Amino acid sequence: MSSPIRVCLAGGGRAGQVHANSLTYHLPGGQLSVLVEQNSEVRATVAGKFGVGECFASLEDALERAHFDAVVITTPTSTHRHLAVLAAAHGKHILCEKPMALTLFECDEMIAAAEKHGVILQLGFMRRFDPDFEAAAARIAAGEIGRPMLIKSLTHGPGLPPQWARDLQTSNGMLAEVNSHDWDATRWLAGSNPRRVYVEVANFKGEARGIDTPDFYDTALAQIKFESGAIASITGVCPCDYGYDSRVEIVGEQGIIQIGDLRGQAVVVCTNRNQGLITPIYRTWPERFAEAYVREMRGFLECIRTGAKPRAGGEDGRWAVAGVLAGTRSFLEERPVELAEVLGEAPEVKV
Amino acid sequence: MSSPIRVCLAGGGRAGQVHANSLTYHLPGGQLSVLVEQNSEVRATVAGKFGVGECFASLEDALERAHFDAVVITTPTSTHRHLAVLAAAHGKHILCEKPMALTLFECDEMIAAAEKHGVILQLGFMRRFDPDFEAAAARIAAGEIGRPMLIKSLTHGPGLPPQWARDLQTSNGMLAEVNSHDWDATRWLAGSNPRRVYVEVANFKGEARGIDTPDFYDTALAQIKFESGAIASITGVCPCDYGYDSRVEIVGEQGIIQIGDLRGQAVVVCTNRNQGLITPIYRTWPERFAEAYVREMRGFLECIRTGAKPRAGGEDGRWAVAGVLAGTRSFLEERPVELAEVLGEAPEVKV
Amino acid sequence: MSSPIRVCLAGGGRAGQVHANSLTYHLPGGQLSVLVEQNSEVRATVAGKFGVGECFASLEDALERAHFDAVVITTPTSTHRHLAVLAAAHGKHILCEKPMALTLFECDEMIAAAEKHGVILQLGFMRRFDPDFEAAAARIAAGEIGRPMLIKSLTHGPGLPPQWARDLQTSNGMLAEVNSHDWDATRWLAGSNPRRVYVEVANFKGEARGIDTPDFYDTALAQIKFESGAIASITGVCPCDYGYDSRVEIVGEQGIIQIGDLRGQAVVVCTNRNQGLITPIYRTWPERFAEAYVREMRGFLECIRTGAKPRAGGEDGRWAVAGVLAGTRSFLEERPVELAEVLGEAPEVKV
Amino acid sequence: MSSPIRVCLAGGGRAGQVHANSLTYHLPGGQLSVLVEQNSEVRATVAGKFGVGECFASLEDALERAHFDAVVITTPTSTHRHLAVLAAAHGKHILCEKPMALTLFECDEMIAAAEKHGVILQLGFMRRFDPDFEAAAARIAAGEIGRPMLIKSLTHGPGLPPQWARDLQTSNGMLAEVNSHDWDATRWLAGSNPRRVYVEVANFKGEARGIDTPDFYDTALAQIKFESGAIASITGVCPCDYGYDSRVEIVGEQGIIQIGDLRGQAVVVCTNRNQGLITPIYRTWPERFAEAYVREMRGFLECIRTGAKPRAGGEDGRWAVAGVLAGTRSFLEERPVELAEVLGEAPEVKV
Repeated sequence: MSSPIRVCLAGGGRAGQVHANSLTYHLPGGQLSVLVEQNSEVRATVAGKFGVGECFASLEDALERAHFDAVVITTPTSTHRHLAVLAAAHGKHILCEKPMALTLFECDEMIAAAEKHGVILQLGFMRRFDPDFEAAAARIAAGEIGRPMLIKSLTHGPGLPPQWARDLQTSNGMLAEVNSHDWDATRWLAGSNPRRVYVEVANFKGEARGIDTPDFYDTALAQIKFESGAIASITGVCPCDYGYDSRVEIVGEQGIIQIGDLRGQAVVVCTNRNQGLITPIYRTWPERFAEAYVREMRGFLECIRTGAKPRAGGEDGRWAVAGVLAGTRSFLEERPVELAEVLGEAPEVKV
Repeated sequence: MSSPIRVCLAGGGRAGQVHANSLTYHLPGGQLSVLVEQNSEVRATVAGKFGVGECFASLEDALERAHFDAVVITTPTSTHRHLAVLAAAHGKHILCEKPMALTLFECDEMIAAAEKHGVILQLGFMRRFDPDFEAAAARIAAGEIGRPMLIKSLTHGPGLPPQWARDLQTSNGMLAEVNSHDWDATRWLAGSNPRRVYVEVANFKGEARGIDTPDFYDTALAQIKFESGAIASITGVCPCDYGYDSRVEIVGEQGIIQIGDLRGQAVVVCTNRNQGLITPIYRTWPERFAEAYVREMRGFLECIRTGAKPRAGGEDGRWAVAGVLAGTRSFLEERPVELAEVLGEAPEVKV
Repeated sequence: MSSPIRVCLAGGGRAGQVHANSLTYHLPGGQLSVLVEQNSEVRATVAGKFGVGECFASLEDALERAHFDAVVITTPTSTHRHLAVLAAAHGKHILCEKPMALTLFECDEMIAAAEKHGVILQLGFMRRFDPDFEAAAARIAAGEIGRPMLIKSLTHGPGLPPQWARDLQTSNGMLAEVNSHDWDATRWLAGSNPRRVYVEVANFKGEARGIDTPDFYDTALAQIKFESGAIASITGVCPCDYGYDSRVEIVGEQGIIQIGDLRGQAVVVCTNRNQGLITPIYRTWPERFAEAYVREMRGFLECIRTGAKPRAGGEDGRWAVAGVLAGTRSFLEERPVELAEVLGEAPEVKV
Repeated sequence: MSSPIRVCLAGGGRAGQVHANSLTYHLPGGQLSVLVEQNSEVRATVAGKFGVGECFASLEDALERAHFDAVVITTPTSTHRHLAVLAAAHGKHILCEKPMALTLFECDEMIAAAEKHGVILQLGFMRRFDPDFEAAAARIAAGEIGRPMLIKSLTHGPGLPPQWARDLQTSNGMLAEVNSHDWDATRWLAGSNPRRVYVEVANFKGEARGIDTPDFYDTALAQIKFESGAIASITGVCPCDYGYDSRVEIVGEQGIIQIGDLRGQAVVVCTNRNQGLITPIYRTWPERFAEAYVREMRGFLECIRTGAKPRAGGEDGRWAVAGVLAGTRSFLEERPVELAEVLGEAPEVKV
């Protein structure tokens, strides 16, 4: 085995720790060498937990003073553009968490920077690395169910997102922060780009939880018409409380495929015949996609080693952002929105 | 046991035979006494198959010459109004298959006739009698998952519907003929009336099967916003080929409920490890809802005996027709349609 | 439809009421005309509940004073022989609940009486009429999994059986009263007769429930070697408390088949991510085999009408009793017991 | 992170490669430094595949010339004793694949050697590290279902074992080579030691596959009576052809727990309504227990680092061997065999 790829983690939050865990405990091929985290307390905790040698408050500092090959960006969405462009300029490969950015213009800048400096830009769509999703996608690609006609994808997350992640001004809200994976998965599985979007949202739990963020919603149903003619729905519920739920169902001309399951363990218990059987559910996304996260990082390390194109790259991240923007406009203006409308508004970026 | 209720079946097609079967083989409380069927060949076959004593080419003839207590209407949708109004005028109780009628005006006439003549008017929404649906609805009504936020209901039917049932002019198409049950189930489970509808449709299989009906579609995704704020989706695929598929998933403030399952038998087989497990699927709707159909008819007979209100009555049928009309307008005009728009157009009916 | 077959129910207990229910509410082809029940209170209650016209304290009285075509025997096992022989002598067809009798000699007398008087003798092995069991048995018979090698059948019943049914002296205990179905099902699915039996039993709950019946056991594992070479296990747990559980798994030379499922409804609920999914279980045997019981009775009526051989007859009942006797001897004497040993002890019966 | 623990793999076969894979691709905490494999071709292949630096034809050579901390023994059972005793004498920690050895005397020697030299002796019962088994065992230990009354454990393996592994003389046959895991799991979950064993076996496929090994069997049903009163069954089918199947079901005083599932992926496909749903099955044991093998090795490395007692140690391996010996005697002599009989025959070992 060649020496491990040295990785700098930017962002010590929950997603950051998932990646830190993969690198530290599961992947001999990568090494978590550097941590960038603004919050000194979080920085110390995470560094201690994963034995990270070098820690900095900013990527700028890290780039100046430490040696590493790649950056994993897990900070809030609004910072992605800056960090990615900076990393690219220093020749560092990038694994960027979803959503890619807040605007298409930002996405374009990130894509252009990676291209210009010849670095890998991989997007954090780990579902593409989940064994269930991967197997199903392969069957669809092999034509087993014919052309996809109808796709339903859902992500229901148990807990209330942080303030910034539920405010349309700072994050594009739930459609972006929770459902980015669905925007990517439906497009990936449809094998086609979205053409038109219609979204309804609802706010059932906000009041009881004291949320006064304008336009807050906890329930969303997005409808997508693809270039291929296929129709998809995306549903988001957050906080859904009952568990972490992520499933997809695809009807094709010759059949149906379901991906994922409510149950989270091959254990069934019954101790009360009036209640019935009990089966554990996935409680959180790190549980549900534990294996996918490790495989995603392994894929990233392999792309660095071999120069291969990542499974999910900048273009994929950009399409998800475009869907979010069209969808948000749809529910705000109560009308279907053509993707062309959103795509046409992005000013050009020069490489 | 009192003497059986005498039933006249109007329509000897597939749905008619399902009801004939219930009456003949499962329900001592009812008796299939009279058959009305225009087509003489079908009439003879069905009469023979179920041992029906008196057969007529028209309900008018039957009313004149035979004795019975109730009529079960299973003829094409366009005839429902005429038959129901006629039956009511002769004091016969009515079990009318879905969709109730082609227009809200027709629905209103049927409701008015039944009211005026004091007969039961039950709509053929047998899912309300299915043990799984019934149990889930009871749990929702008991507040187990809190207020419904998101509902997904689907009906995918294996075979190509007959010409009249896929032509918008003669039937309101798949949204009506296949998805009437979903319009009813979502409203029933939401405990609220629809407020706005948006629909996308697609035609994937039409060309290959030589269908040139204008506006034909085999795939539909309807989105409903309810008065309660809840959002629902209805999907229809017909012909879907892979089996008969009918499931509902409801997310409420405190949890999730799933109703129905792809599998159609508690049998699992594996004979090839490269293929995997095989589980029978429901092949057809009479299989899937076998028990529901018997229970629906039993419910009808009980309402006749006791004067109780049927679980699904004229108002329920009318709301489903309203959803269909709004939905059809939505995909034809590519815009969300408020139910008020459709409801406001129905001219008044005098009782 | 010809006029209904008139049925006399002997025994107004739980199983009797299941059959009364089938005849009264589900089978136009049969009519519950007569009730025989010793206990006058039970007699009045059951007669009222099902509208039975003629009631008697003994079968002798009923035979003398009422008209009927068939007897359904659901009284305690020790009375089966007397009632069946008496009914046969009067030309009445017989549907006899399991276990058939207490000894092989009694079985032989019943078989001989039915043969001599030319009446149907059907055994209450309703699993042979359950759609899941039936479909699986057909697949095995068609060779889908090759010759059966290994069969596991279980019946776990929730509640404590009555005193007589857990005492070896009066009933042959749980192996007979609970597991008769498994003795029949394993032999049916193996397509072979048992050759040797070994049984272990345990008593876990007896003390806490104040049971001092000698040799009482609440847990049993019987092992059967068939003539074909196939091996089977039967497990019984009663009271198991957690629900009614009845499943079979068959491994053949080319594959595996599972019949039945813990879950009792196509409904899944989750309201607590720390608990997980909840799925209703079958609470009782009348729930689990509701459809099978109706179909079993329909089969009986059809045999009466057509003279066909019942799916489960006297020989099948006799083999189940033989298994029980060999199994009981096995655990009492702590050794494997050859069926030949038990079969050889039955004195001949003269027809 | 401290420097990785250096591991020598003894045996480059299938199980050996599973462990090599864990160390090379999943566990930064361990390093596959040395390979011992007699067959030069296998040695070269495996060394190349996993980039092992130092390779030897014997453990003796490796001990003399290479530096490492631990040995993973995956060679045929008959060699385990020699390798383990040798490794222990050189102060190497040991992870030994199941079955532990051919006789209790061999087991005792291994246990004594490990004790004497103060090294870890872990047995390859990776089910104890499988998340499903682990979670279920924790629930049982917490009293969720009360005292275990009945346990059924099965292992059905798809392919024909090698000649040595199906010959009673060289391996103790299927009960040892395939079902060792079940002997361990039933005892672990019962929380009690076995007291008596009865086994039936059958040979259904041998002739067609040209196997003339004396006493060969492909189907086995072992019945165990535990000290606690609990009863268990173990079934083995090998080759079973239809997939790799490993499940356990435990009935306790207050409920039931099922561990494992036939299905091997959360993917369901249906493309033919006459066939039904298709769900992938686990094809092989490395697939089914992929995660368990990594966790088992991680557990081993942790024990080495911390000196903790392994989850499955020499005593556990010895009990599994005792069960195998009693079970084999049982089917050969057609009688139940007390464990005491087998345990009493093991000559003492001096440390």
